[in-house]
Amino acid sequence: MDIKQQALNKHYEWQGKIEVISRAPINTREDLSLAYTPGVAQACLEIKDDPSLSYKLTRRKNLVAVITDGTAVLGLGDIGGLAGMPVMEGKCCLFKEFADVDAFPLCIKSKDVDEIVRTIELISDSFGGINIEDISAPRCFEIEKRLKEKLNIPVFHDDQHGTAVVVGAALINAVRCAEKKIEDITVVINGAGAAGIAIGKFLLEMGIGNLIMVDVAGIIDKDTDYENPAHKDIAKITNNNNLKGTLADAMKGADVFIGVSRPNLVNEDMVKSMAEKPIVFAMANPEPEIMPDKAKAAGAYIVGTGRSDFPNQINNVLVFPGIFKGALSVGAKAITEEMKKAAAYAIADIVTKDKLCPEYIIPSPLDKSVAQAVADAVAKAAEKEGNN
Amino acid sequence: MDIKQQALNKHYEWQGKIEVISRAPINTREDLSLAYTPGVAQACLEIKDDPSLSYKLTRRKNLVAVITDGTAVLGLGDIGGLAGMPVMEGKCCLFKEFADVDAFPLCIKSKDVDEIVRTIELISDSFGGINIEDISAPRCFEIEKRLKEKLNIPVFHDDQHGTAVVVGAALINAVRCAEKKIEDITVVINGAGAAGIAIGKFLLEMGIGNLIMVDVAGIIDKDTDYENPAHKDIAKITNNNNLKGTLADAMKGADVFIGVSRPNLVNEDMVKSMAEKPIVFAMANPEPEIMPDKAKAAGAYIVGTGRSDFPNQINNVLVFPGIFKGALSVGAKAITEEMKKAAAYAIADIVTKDKLCPEYIIPSPLDKSVAQAVADAVAKAAEKEGNN
Repeated sequence: MDIKQQALNKHYEWQGKIEVISRAPINTREDLSLAYTPGVAQACLEIKDDPSLSYKLTRRKNLVAVITDGTAVLGLGDIGGLAGMPVMEGKCCLFKEFADVDAFPLCIKSKDVDEIVRTIELISDSFGGINIEDISAPRCFEIEKRLKEKLNIPVFHDDQHGTAVVVGAALINAVRCAEKKIEDITVVINGAGAAGIAIGKFLLEMGIGNLIMVDVAGIIDKDTDYENPAHKDIAKITNNNNLKGTLADAMKGADVFIGVSRPNLVNEDMVKSMAEKPIVFAMANPEPEIMPDKAKAAGAYIVGTGRSDFPNQINNVLVFPGIFKGALSVGAKAITEEMKKAAAYAIADIVTKDKLCPEYIIPSPLDKSVAQAVADAVAKAAEKEGNN
Repeated sequence: MDIKQQALNKHYEWQGKIEVISRAPINTREDLSLAYTPGVAQACLEIKDDPSLSYKLTRRKNLVAVITDGTAVLGLGDIGGLAGMPVMEGKCCLFKEFADVDAFPLCIKSKDVDEIVRTIELISDSFGGINIEDISAPRCFEIEKRLKEKLNIPVFHDDQHGTAVVVGAALINAVRCAEKKIEDITVVINGAGAAGIAIGKFLLEMGIGNLIMVDVAGIIDKDTDYENPAHKDIAKITNNNNLKGTLADAMKGADVFIGVSRPNLVNEDMVKSMAEKPIVFAMANPEPEIMPDKAKAAGAYIVGTGRSDFPNQINNVLVFPGIFKGALSVGAKAITEEMKKAAAYAIADIVTKDKLCPEYIIPSPLDKSVAQAVADAVAKAAEKEGNN
């Protein structure tokens, strides 16, 4: 049986991948009067007098909403929120299984940015954090920006920032392994959508020397007048030498290639044209921009993909459970660049010096020790900034 | 330690009364590829092709939202949604503990009817049913009405209909016990708010002979021009003899008194003025309209209250878990009058003939067999109507 049929059968068997249970036993009259009326009134009155007590007297402190409008679900595109729910439920399972964070899936039946923002704002008191998911660009930028302005709880678009952090973690160790300096490297990112741009911005935050963004139309340069506001913005802070041309032109002499684009866009000559000890993260799914064996044959020193059947799987399940666990643990009001950097270094540091090698630069997505390490680092960073 | 402090301590200990768990284990690469990517894509595509499969491939089939705006929480009034959340969580615990229905609490940060309706509509694909809760009248009527028109899933305002059904159940057995006929009885309801009006309408559906509604201004009659549209409506279908006057006037010769009003509004003379074998449901909380011992001394044949420390506790925890379980089990599109009547008779029938007596007309709220009996009856009624 193929994986598709097997997964479908499992979904029928599970009858939903999440479940809401009671933490309060209700068996006696006393139970009823403590968890419900009349006793519950006291908890209500305490929160009325001091709203911050909602983090102690309700589940809010450990609860994240996973919210989509279904416009960019996996590689399936705009399939609608309802059809996206199996992914949202799956994400909630990962939150719970990896970080013991409760997460609840919601789909919103609108594609209108104003309505989506307003809906999330209106229900936000029910949660300690908001993870927006699988919302198409450029709407996702606007939605995230406005939610961050309006809400006093962490808002995180995992497709952007989770991906950025896990790529950052992989890059930290790749650079360590290749004995390069992060401030010296030139990174080429192919794919200037939500993920690509978020990765680029985050790597600049981390201090890389030069970033070249490439989109279907070629290298993003400083002379073109881009219609897409995200491209207009990124053009200003990338491409130090104002290089123009194709992906192949961008890759000449570059230290790192990061693909969040489409299968088979990179050939062996392009890898050969890179600087010494080329680092190739070919993350298109399910087929990478170049297969690892081909990249290696062309001289790639380190290769990572999104796949579990090759070494160095770059998967953001390493990121979001721990990021939220850490943010919630200290009552952080937002997830900041410093917290994301702390998460990236915490993930990288799981791979100890003695184990670090080109085939092992990033922990397994199944390593359940990662989330706690990330949470600790993120909590510390938040406290250091006074962001709580 | 008093109940208030004890309940508060328990709330601190619980750290939230609900929890979201994973039904899918995530320990191996295979687990990850079945519950999440790439396998999950297949479940998404199935739902995209046939939206009804969301009831089989996600948790929707067993999942109810418990939603408030916090405008009428318990007897505390408009304390806001955030402060109302301990009640919503408690309600979710009861759903799970009594009927194994997953329920998730949400508060909406708006008092605007349009916004509340739109917000619930936009997230409704995430759920199999909507239980609205503790929303003030007359807004609750409008919100419920519009949600029922817009949504294709059951919408239930428990404060109205849960209360109506449990009172109906108690009345069925009270009438059996007193050997009266339901079509002959005159019922006086004191308190013409959301609960009182819902009870009144439901008892008329059940076939009582005459209903007299009484509000602070006295008996609702057919000549007064009421400003409150709910009073205007109810005046048309009640008070057969167009009686005018006070509560005391209404109670003269009545078979049943139902109080959803305030403590101590009924005295012994009023009970004495009722018909033979008076039935008194004095449900004001925490102090009833007349204490059971006083009512009994004045000749009441059957007395029920909302309290657990007297016989015949009339509590809607007997209703909502089973109603939703039954509705969800057959995919009912709405909760109809027939389903509510079926629920009331199912609750009443739990008390077997040999046990039925004035001190035992309604099962204990802790009787966990009730929810399944209600669910079975409700499912059968829904199927009979073709409402699924």
